[in-house]
Amino acid sequence: MGRWEPDSQGRLVEAAIALFDEFGFEQTTVADIAERAGLTERTFFRHFSDKREVLFFGASALQELLVDTTVNAPAVATPIEAVTLALEAAGDLFTERRDFSLRRQRIISSSTELQERELIKLASLASSLGAALRQRGVPDPTAGLTGEIAIAVFKTAFERWVTESRPPGLAQVIRASMRQLREVTASA
Amino acid sequence: MGRWEPDSQGRLVEAAIALFDEFGFEQTTVADIAERAGLTERTFFRHFSDKREVLFFGASALQELLVDTTVNAPAVATPIEAVTLALEAAGDLFTERRDFSLRRQRIISSSTELQERELIKLASLASSLGAALRQRGVPDPTAGLTGEIAIAVFKTAFERWVTESRPPGLAQVIRASMRQLREVTASA
Repeated sequence: MGRWEPDSQGRLVEAAIALFDEFGFEQTTVADIAERAGLTERTFFRHFSDKREVLFFGASALQELLVDTTVNAPAVATPIEAVTLALEAAGDLFTERRDFSLRRQRIISSSTELQERELIKLASLASSLGAALRQRGVPDPTAGLTGEIAIAVFKTAFERWVTESRPPGLAQVIRASMRQLREVTASA
Repeated sequence: MGRWEPDSQGRLVEAAIALFDEFGFEQTTVADIAERAGLTERTFFRHFSDKREVLFFGASALQELLVDTTVNAPAVATPIEAVTLALEAAGDLFTERRDFSLRRQRIISSSTELQERELIKLASLASSLGAALRQRGVPDPTAGLTGEIAIAVFKTAFERWVTESRPPGLAQVIRASMRQLREVTASA
C-alpha cells in the first residue's frame, strides 16, 4: 500500500462519521458503513465491536497520552501543572483533527446514548489522571481532586473550542480555562 | 395516618434498598420490593417507573435545592461562593441521611449501569449550577466552568465522606475540598 492510501480502519471511521452525520447515528447500520467504505461487515467487526465503538476507539490512546504526559512531567511540576501539560498535549491532538472532532461532537450531541458513553469516558479519564498523579507520589485527596478538576476544565474548554467558529488551538483554550479556574477559585 | 407512619413511597424505598444491598440490584425484582414493603406492584408503579428509579428519585429535589441556593445566595457572593453555599446545603441533607447514603453508594458501586446513571445525574447537576449562575448574571465561560468545578469538588468530597468511618458532616468535607481546590490551583 502506498503511504497515502488509507487503511481499512481509517476508511471505516471516515465512512461511519459521514453517514452518522448525514443520516443519524440510529439510522446507520454496520452494513451501511461497510458498503460506504467499500469493505465487508466482517472487516468492520475485525476493527470494532459495534458502530458506537467507531466514535470511541480513540479513548484508550487519549488515556495513554494523558497518563504518560502526567507521569513524565518534570519533577518540579505541581500536580495541576502536570495535568495541564497532559491536557495541552491532548489539545494538540484534537487541534490537528479539528474537522473530525467537530463532526464527532455533533453526532454525540444528537444521541442520549452517545452522550452517556462520553460521560463515562470522561469519568474514566479523570480516574486515570488521579492514578497518574499517585504514581508521581501525590497523595489523596489532592490526586483524585486534581484529576476531576482537570477533566472539568477540559470539558469546558472543549465545548468552547467546538462552538467557536475561529478559535485558537485547543491547548490555548485549555490554558485560558486554567487561568479562569484560578481566578474563580481565588475569589472565595 | 399517624405522623410517624411511613408513607408507601418511603416503605418502598426502604424495602428496595434493603433488598438491593442484601441480594444485589440485578437479582431484585419489583415484585420482591412490593412484597417486602407489604404493598402491590401496582402501588410501586404509581411511585416509580422502574426499580432503578428508587435510587434516583431524590435527584430532582437535590437539583432544586442546589439551584435555589445558588440563585438566592447573597448578591455579594462570588460565583464559587454561591455554589459552595449550595453544595453545603446539599451536604447537610446527606449528613442527616448518612446511613441511607452509604447503603445507596454501596449499591451504585456494585453495578456499571447504576454508575453510569449516577454520572449522568452529576453531569446534569453541573449544567443546572451553570444555569443558576447565569441567572445571577455570571457570564460564560465562568458560569459553565464553575458549575463543572463545583460538581468535581462535590464528587471528590462525597467519595471521601462515604469511605471514612467517622467523618465530620459532608458540608465540612466539602469546605475542606474547596480549600484544597484553592491550594491546588494556586500552585500553577
